[in-house]
Amino acid sequence: MAKLIECVPNISEGRRRDVVEQIVDTVRGKDGVKLLDYSSDADHNRTVITLVGEPEALKNALVEFVGRAVELIDLREHEGQHPRMGAVDVIPFIPIKEVSVAEAVELSKELAQTLYEKYRVPSFLYESSASADHRKNLATLRKGEFEGMADKVKTEEFRPDYGEDIHPSYGITAIGARPFLVAFNINLATDDIEIANKVAKAVRHISGGLRYVKGMGVRLEDRGIVQVSMNLTDFTKTPIYRVFELVKLEAARYGVEVVGSEVIGLVPMASLIDCATWYLRTEDFKLDQVLEYQLME
Amino acid sequence: MAKLIECVPNISEGRRRDVVEQIVDTVRGKDGVKLLDYSSDADHNRTVITLVGEPEALKNALVEFVGRAVELIDLREHEGQHPRMGAVDVIPFIPIKEVSVAEAVELSKELAQTLYEKYRVPSFLYESSASADHRKNLATLRKGEFEGMADKVKTEEFRPDYGEDIHPSYGITAIGARPFLVAFNINLATDDIEIANKVAKAVRHISGGLRYVKGMGVRLEDRGIVQVSMNLTDFTKTPIYRVFELVKLEAARYGVEVVGSEVIGLVPMASLIDCATWYLRTEDFKLDQVLEYQLME
Repeated sequence: MAKLIECVPNISEGRRRDVVEQIVDTVRGKDGVKLLDYSSDADHNRTVITLVGEPEALKNALVEFVGRAVELIDLREHEGQHPRMGAVDVIPFIPIKEVSVAEAVELSKELAQTLYEKYRVPSFLYESSASADHRKNLATLRKGEFEGMADKVKTEEFRPDYGEDIHPSYGITAIGARPFLVAFNINLATDDIEIANKVAKAVRHISGGLRYVKGMGVRLEDRGIVQVSMNLTDFTKTPIYRVFELVKLEAARYGVEVVGSEVIGLVPMASLIDCATWYLRTEDFKLDQVLEYQLME
Repeated sequence: MAKLIECVPNISEGRRRDVVEQIVDTVRGKDGVKLLDYSSDADHNRTVITLVGEPEALKNALVEFVGRAVELIDLREHEGQHPRMGAVDVIPFIPIKEVSVAEAVELSKELAQTLYEKYRVPSFLYESSASADHRKNLATLRKGEFEGMADKVKTEEFRPDYGEDIHPSYGITAIGARPFLVAFNINLATDDIEIANKVAKAVRHISGGLRYVKGMGVRLEDRGIVQVSMNLTDFTKTPIYRVFELVKLEAARYGVEVVGSEVIGLVPMASLIDCATWYLRTEDFKLDQVLEYQLME
């Protein structure tokens, strides 16, 4: 696979096993698409599906995926703890390899258009695909949820990007491109939560730090230490090593060492290779020098 | 592909294009085997082929590969600058992913046995597969070349591991497992070759340095600087970051900074991920958290 894109659709069904399986079945065994994971939460009554694939193949698979959800999920009968506005609630596209954000945005629009033409499923474009700043944030779009959405889409601010009204049983979907999110935590050699909070405040965007870092201090009770718990919302612009070195520097101001770090879940190879090549000061290293890159097709 | 092994057979033919193609054809389009590269040198009259694949599939492809070489290459008519003793001169197996050295050794023995049974092609086991210390080194085994080999294999020290005499037209092959070799160079902010030589001497195995490092000082005339040019012969035991940090330390003793480094050619992902996780001090990071690892099958 030359171009790779990840997609993590969330569906508003986490209890009826057979329904989840029938929807997930639409993306199994498709050329150019790989189902990496799916997991359901009964309390949330929601399932998160992780797919990776070539852009075009992925889009086509998602058309079938949404078509099955239109048939099988009726939000008028849905309840669960997690806020939701659509049978397929959100469809984020995340560039992984040789795909620009612009291409991912284009893909999100093509999918949104097809879904409206084929099923009369309306959508909001969000994140990098959003048509205006106030429509970027998913929580803002979803506020009022399915029950309030028929009225909300009639306001000027929240007209759907595709369609006009919500679909009676399906609702509305948010579709958009966003960077890969890396969950990265750094453990400090102290039990003083104040220090973790000060360091978090120093490095996160909202309080004056790095542009693509969210973060806060957390106690690790069992280990008697504290942690700066972070989300890196665009590692291509705010790379992991820069965050790590800045946290180390800020912690040192309090005489505190970094004892370790954690990378949670899956991460793109490039996010770590970037760290290796930065620390090793390599000149002209190209990702396709990685042997395993030659094997993906 | 869960298990991955690399194989870089060298054949004693680099001039007759059609012969090279017919031999390389035996490994094309095989399930579980990928031809990464092959390049011929007319002066050496030799071709180096780079394959990666699943152990069993790779072994089976190599049986066909050697079979074709038996038919098409006659060393009695071969001349070239590069020393050689067999039509397929050497077959190294290099573990890449989820394969131990012991498994690669086993694979080399299975292949050697099959080649003898099927074609009466004899072989020496070398490197990690060698049956004695004096038989580990390829240059030692190959000394005397094809022309002297009929006598050499009659000596006690150099009896073949499989077979007794050389094959009249094919000669004899060296087969063995060895670690991946990383070519890694570090550039110093000085034009003093003596400093590069002293640093090389400090870090390389032969003169008291790290176990799996070979190295020497080299001038980069066009840039007016010098380089510590190295081969890391087992990055799983002497990792890249340790070499880099030691070179930095030794160069600093002369007041010289490291200006950059070069990783030459292909490298396994693990060799760089190890660097990232060392510098980032990650706890419990697993290679299969790398998204792209999920896509290789």
